[in-house]
Amino acid sequence: MITLTSDFGSPYPAAMKGVIRRHTDAEMIDVAHDLPRGDPRAAAFWLRFVLSEFPPAVHCAVIDPGVGTDRDALVVRAGSHVLVAPDNGLAMPPARALAGEEGGEAIEAFVVDVDEPASETFHGRDVFAPVAARIRAALDGGPAASTPAEVSEALASMEDVSPATDPVDLDFPEPTVERDDGRDPVAVDGEVLAIDRFGNVVTNVPGGLIRGRDWVRINGDLTPVAETFGAVDPGDRLVTVGSHGYVECDVNDGRGDGAFDLRPGDEVRIVADNVSL
Amino acid sequence: MITLTSDFGSPYPAAMKGVIRRHTDAEMIDVAHDLPRGDPRAAAFWLRFVLSEFPPAVHCAVIDPGVGTDRDALVVRAGSHVLVAPDNGLAMPPARALAGEEGGEAIEAFVVDVDEPASETFHGRDVFAPVAARIRAALDGGPAASTPAEVSEALASMEDVSPATDPVDLDFPEPTVERDDGRDPVAVDGEVLAIDRFGNVVTNVPGGLIRGRDWVRINGDLTPVAETFGAVDPGDRLVTVGSHGYVECDVNDGRGDGAFDLRPGDEVRIVADNVSL
Amino acid sequence: MITLTSDFGSPYPAAMKGVIRRHTDAEMIDVAHDLPRGDPRAAAFWLRFVLSEFPPAVHCAVIDPGVGTDRDALVVRAGSHVLVAPDNGLAMPPARALAGEEGGEAIEAFVVDVDEPASETFHGRDVFAPVAARIRAALDGGPAASTPAEVSEALASMEDVSPATDPVDLDFPEPTVERDDGRDPVAVDGEVLAIDRFGNVVTNVPGGLIRGRDWVRINGDLTPVAETFGAVDPGDRLVTVGSHGYVECDVNDGRGDGAFDLRPGDEVRIVADNVSL
Repeated sequence: MITLTSDFGSPYPAAMKGVIRRHTDAEMIDVAHDLPRGDPRAAAFWLRFVLSEFPPAVHCAVIDPGVGTDRDALVVRAGSHVLVAPDNGLAMPPARALAGEEGGEAIEAFVVDVDEPASETFHGRDVFAPVAARIRAALDGGPAASTPAEVSEALASMEDVSPATDPVDLDFPEPTVERDDGRDPVAVDGEVLAIDRFGNVVTNVPGGLIRGRDWVRINGDLTPVAETFGAVDPGDRLVTVGSHGYVECDVNDGRGDGAFDLRPGDEVRIVADNVSL
Repeated sequence: MITLTSDFGSPYPAAMKGVIRRHTDAEMIDVAHDLPRGDPRAAAFWLRFVLSEFPPAVHCAVIDPGVGTDRDALVVRAGSHVLVAPDNGLAMPPARALAGEEGGEAIEAFVVDVDEPASETFHGRDVFAPVAARIRAALDGGPAASTPAEVSEALASMEDVSPATDPVDLDFPEPTVERDDGRDPVAVDGEVLAIDRFGNVVTNVPGGLIRGRDWVRINGDLTPVAETFGAVDPGDRLVTVGSHGYVECDVNDGRGDGAFDLRPGDEVRIVADNVSL
Repeated sequence: MITLTSDFGSPYPAAMKGVIRRHTDAEMIDVAHDLPRGDPRAAAFWLRFVLSEFPPAVHCAVIDPGVGTDRDALVVRAGSHVLVAPDNGLAMPPARALAGEEGGEAIEAFVVDVDEPASETFHGRDVFAPVAARIRAALDGGPAASTPAEVSEALASMEDVSPATDPVDLDFPEPTVERDDGRDPVAVDGEVLAIDRFGNVVTNVPGGLIRGRDWVRINGDLTPVAETFGAVDPGDRLVTVGSHGYVECDVNDGRGDGAFDLRPGDEVRIVADNVSL
């Protein structure tokens, strides 16, 4: 199986699929092709969330603001999963999630020695799709039928693949938590990680930090904490925990990003309602 | 085969596909993931239109404004087809269409005894995708290779599946038809069922009621009846019969919803042009 | 393999897939379903760009402003590829690209004798999908396993298929090139072919005509020539060569169509910066 992720819109990903079909009959599954343009951080966030659901596969992800520069083409093994992506950090957070409890040692990074590609601007088709297809073709039965050691060996035996010495990494900021005397969290300084299609504001604040509370202040404004959108009237704001496990600032039947005036990278201070700060 | 329908946008459906791939190698086909948000009625309309084209399959449809409440997870058998959906009525109209001439008796509804899902908000991934995958995996060769009786037996033998006593149903309103002395229809009071991507206004008025007429009044405005958009000038309004068989209010190279000022649920009165009412 | 292209949006293409699955288990790959509405020329441009990446396949492309008129349903063989499309010209430019160096003689066009379709407006489902599926089913192993002669024979042996006498053709305008005494190009009068999702303005000017230059005038305005978007500041204009090989007028992190005030069909005059004209 090969999953495909990009910010290309349409019809460019179809060109990648055509190229892959020249190399392998492996199934292709689209993750998304409408991710925020040129934003490896947003891609890393969503891939970290989505790819963990898959059985071992080759994941080709091309969000590539550096296309045409000399940034490397990266291959990262995480357990039996393989990520193929430009070396801008987007592959590392999902790789850590895929490696799971095995920890960072389960991750190996390689660079691909790329021939001069046919185009300056469409390395999804000219570089990353062929690399992903060749890796898949090199694994009998694919990643899902291979042990991590077998995947590692297959990668190491490819002539144009060599260990990466210093791959770019991205990490998501950890929020700062203030606790009371009983060690309960009373205030968190976090950050907006992403805005989804519905305008829901995804923060880096783990859901556990607000669980059990009925109200919190979001950047000063008292807001109800709810498990479901339907708990508030249409058009009303709420704070909830998304399926990714993080605190979201949402509006029932509306857009949270507008209502809370929040964009990716903005600071979010969440304070317990019974605390005056 | 498993078809997937939702209002999730991207990349959430990919998480459902990953989960399904852990259970079964069955083909997955997307119906749509951009259906009107939280609108089971619109989903029921489009699924009734689309699913009938498929050979027997497992259809997983998650438009779920009640996610996080105690609404049931429903499994509906219609002939050899199986629909998996929240119990909000969206599954019943397409199930009746899939059962076809066999009538309502060909439909069986079950509820699934669901374990506490991993998330409060993403039951597409945590509840409906696994159920659809397990049903598909329980059928050798899939629904297309199974008789209705075999599908029924397979569902009944699943430990966490039990007959539904009173599943929520949705039905589409029937228009009111006035006829002249010769029993020809002269006026119809109908309703807007849906607006499609192009702004075409889909009503619940069967196409046969306007066939043979050159002009009708739509809420008072004289409008040409045409078989094709090209029969009127760009920007001009027309009434036509969509591929779903219902009367549509359209604009050639424009949007019918704006031109006719119609939204889902609005009343539409269609009167023959040679009748003064 | 069957590729699918349309301007239908969603969920209509799923109905085509259901119909195809009743005829064949062949893989289906979406090229795009959000192409400019009713614009065979734009479709021809993008298909010429994308389909060449695929191994031989049946390509079903329905951009059909003439639906409901008596335009023919066309089948075009190009090498071992088969295109199925309305006879409005969209199939011919990609067919020539697929036939490649073999030239026009490698192309055969047929018309399909179509029964009265079930609908007046959804020939994607009622005409083109079944034709594509039947062609695929008629080829053991599909186009990729068949020689051009075998594909030709299979088409000729279908009862409802007969040679097309005068299929509609589309061609893309060639730019006019002025050269200096050394035969170097100094000015080109071209045309906008398409605008992509990002607002990039794709012209019909081959990239080779600007290669090696640092600056050119686009309709009078001096603009840097760059290999990558990152070579200019965000919001700044640039001229580059797209992956399709043609000159594009772009804006880094912005929209070229707005900045250059260019739409499909507009004239673009590109003049070397060291020439006063």
